[in-house]
Amino acid sequence: VTPARSRKPPAVQRYHMNTLKATASPISNQEKVIILTPLAKFYDEYWTNLLKLNYPRELVELGFIIPKGREGNLALSKLQDVVHKVQTGKKKDQFAKVTILRQDFDSPVPQNEKDRHALSAQKARRAAMSKARNSLLFSVLRPDIAWVLWLDADIIETPPTLIQDLASHDKAVIVPNCFQRYKEGGVSKIRPYDYNSWHDSNDALKMAGTMGKDDIILEGYREMATWRLLMTGEYKEHGSVHDETKLDGVGGTALLVKAEVHRDGAMFPPFPFYHLIETEGFAKMARRLGYQPYGLPNYLVYHYNE
Amino acid sequence: VTPARSRKPPAVQRYHMNTLKATASPISNQEKVIILTPLAKFYDEYWTNLLKLNYPRELVELGFIIPKGREGNLALSKLQDVVHKVQTGKKKDQFAKVTILRQDFDSPVPQNEKDRHALSAQKARRAAMSKARNSLLFSVLRPDIAWVLWLDADIIETPPTLIQDLASHDKAVIVPNCFQRYKEGGVSKIRPYDYNSWHDSNDALKMAGTMGKDDIILEGYREMATWRLLMTGEYKEHGSVHDETKLDGVGGTALLVKAEVHRDGAMFPPFPFYHLIETEGFAKMARRLGYQPYGLPNYLVYHYNE
Ligand SMILES: Nc1nc2c(ncn2[C@@H]2O[C@H](COP(=O)(O)OP(=O)(O)O)[C@@H](O)[C@H]2O)c(=O)[nH]1
Ligand SMILES: Nc1nc2c(ncn2[C@@H]2O[C@H](COP(=O)(O)OP(=O)(O)O)[C@@H](O)[C@H]2O)c(=O)[nH]1
Ligand SMILES: [Mn+2]
Ligand SMILES: [Mn+2]
Repeated sequence: VTPARSRKPPAVQRYHMNTLKATASPISNQEKVIILTPLAKFYDEYWTNLLKLNYPRELVELGFIIPKGREGNLALSKLQDVVHKVQTGKKKDQFAKVTILRQDFDSPVPQNEKDRHALSAQKARRAAMSKARNSLLFSVLRPDIAWVLWLDADIIETPPTLIQDLASHDKAVIVPNCFQRYKEGGVSKIRPYDYNSWHDSNDALKMAGTMGKDDIILEGYREMATWRLLMTGEYKEHGSVHDETKLDGVGGTALLVKAEVHRDGAMFPPFPFYHLIETEGFAKMARRLGYQPYGLPNYLVYHYNE
Repeated sequence: VTPARSRKPPAVQRYHMNTLKATASPISNQEKVIILTPLAKFYDEYWTNLLKLNYPRELVELGFIIPKGREGNLALSKLQDVVHKVQTGKKKDQFAKVTILRQDFDSPVPQNEKDRHALSAQKARRAAMSKARNSLLFSVLRPDIAWVLWLDADIIETPPTLIQDLASHDKAVIVPNCFQRYKEGGVSKIRPYDYNSWHDSNDALKMAGTMGKDDIILEGYREMATWRLLMTGEYKEHGSVHDETKLDGVGGTALLVKAEVHRDGAMFPPFPFYHLIETEGFAKMARRLGYQPYGLPNYLVYHYNE
């Protein structure tokens, strides 16, 4: 008897993928969700918000991937502390499972706002982000999981009903609008943050047609005017949170995906895919697989303000 | 306490992806392998050959995906019988784990040789195959697995050292040459079977350049002369089994992949990817991710002869 044997008895597990449903009523249907977070920096506000999500914990798994290097070490140690606290606390507060992957490569660019948003750094950075997301996804998605919620480590405020709310639209891929809080003259205001959720434009498609085959189109850079209609611009202060809009590109700061979309093969292309990369490339891939992504222009989540 | 809790205590699992190695000496290094088989028909000869593989069983997991429908039912029931027998038999003969997924869709084309090889049926068939492979891969690959061996359900003869032999070349993606035994005038002979392992040709690349964007190039059809150099043609009866050749396309009848290639995002495109689909599209995707596929022209595995 090998040690491996004595720890874990061999098993045969059978799954009927046709009984695995991702519906508009995920809680009453007991649908399992995995929340996936690529995490380069740990924010207390992220964790506090995560703990406020009121989807039944026994149906929620967490998966993290953390880059190598000094900053990653710090993030890992903070994450481990808070995870340990929850998973050894009250039974009813425990998540069904938590998996933490330590990446085998460091972030290719520094984590501060200015450096990581420089246009020149984007291709390498977003290719690395894609690989991190794929590694996490390919390693922790299991046959009984119905939904994947992608949630960045710097999303610090969402409605507690985020998962149910997004799922209630019954879309294969759905993304809320990601904004940021800031102060101006002592007044608290909000402004758009994530520009990766958009409707395609003729200009962007024309641009793609004349580009080198390994070039990528990026959103939110003056140097590269795409004239795409951004979901951030569709936000209406008094609009209904239920308003839906069809999207061509999606951001990944918060993003709910029916697991079957990933299982069919939709991942985050680390290489230019129709001149798109990472979450925007994912949206294109989902569309190639026959799934239409949607956005909720008036349903807001908030990004940390550095 | 919910029933889920009492069965499976919540856990935190940590994995350091940089300590996960896929090396030329996988056994001494205790590297875990998952054998993945899309299975539409069960052949006893496949199972007998699988059981002869002498990679340590405690390091081997099996994963199957079976289509819906009548033929799938039959295959499932036969598979379950043999799996049950092994997994309840001697400890040392048990596989570390066996996962059987039942697909939520049926095969789009009949399973007989003639129908499934008709050119007209290829795109739908190979798109379905791609989705089946992706569903399996995305559902059962875990963070501690170093290698993925793709093995079709109609591969009925391989050397028992298949896994070690392929791994010993230390390539990210490596494929043996897939032949078929047949009789001619009472004499046992062999002939090429899988034409999906090839070196690209200028003709094929030119063809791709003039095709509609959703068209695919297929190998082994007179109607579509690609003039690619096929690995089947490189077989030399007395050549060394260690001979290597760089490939642009690979077949999936038997195919060893370092798990990191999949984790970086390489899957089986169910849509035309550079006018390629399924395993050939996978090879292209691996190349886009910086991994060079290799073939072993003189290392033979055998496909069932219907
Ligand atoms: N695993 C991993 N996570 C990263 C890496 N770089 C950034 N992240 C995380 O990925 C998410 C998105 O990155 P971020 O820099 O916030 O993107 P931005 O908000 O678009 O500028 C955040 O949760 C980061 O903590 C990386 O190299 N590896
Ligand atoms: N899960 C699943 N497996 C399939 C399906 N069609 C074929 N297979 C299996 O996939 C592998 C390749 O298919 P096969 O028809 O043998 O391809 P060929 O040898 O290239 O003609 C074999 O192991 C089949 O049993 C399908 O629709 N779903
Ligand atoms: Mn961010
Ligand atoms: Mn076959």
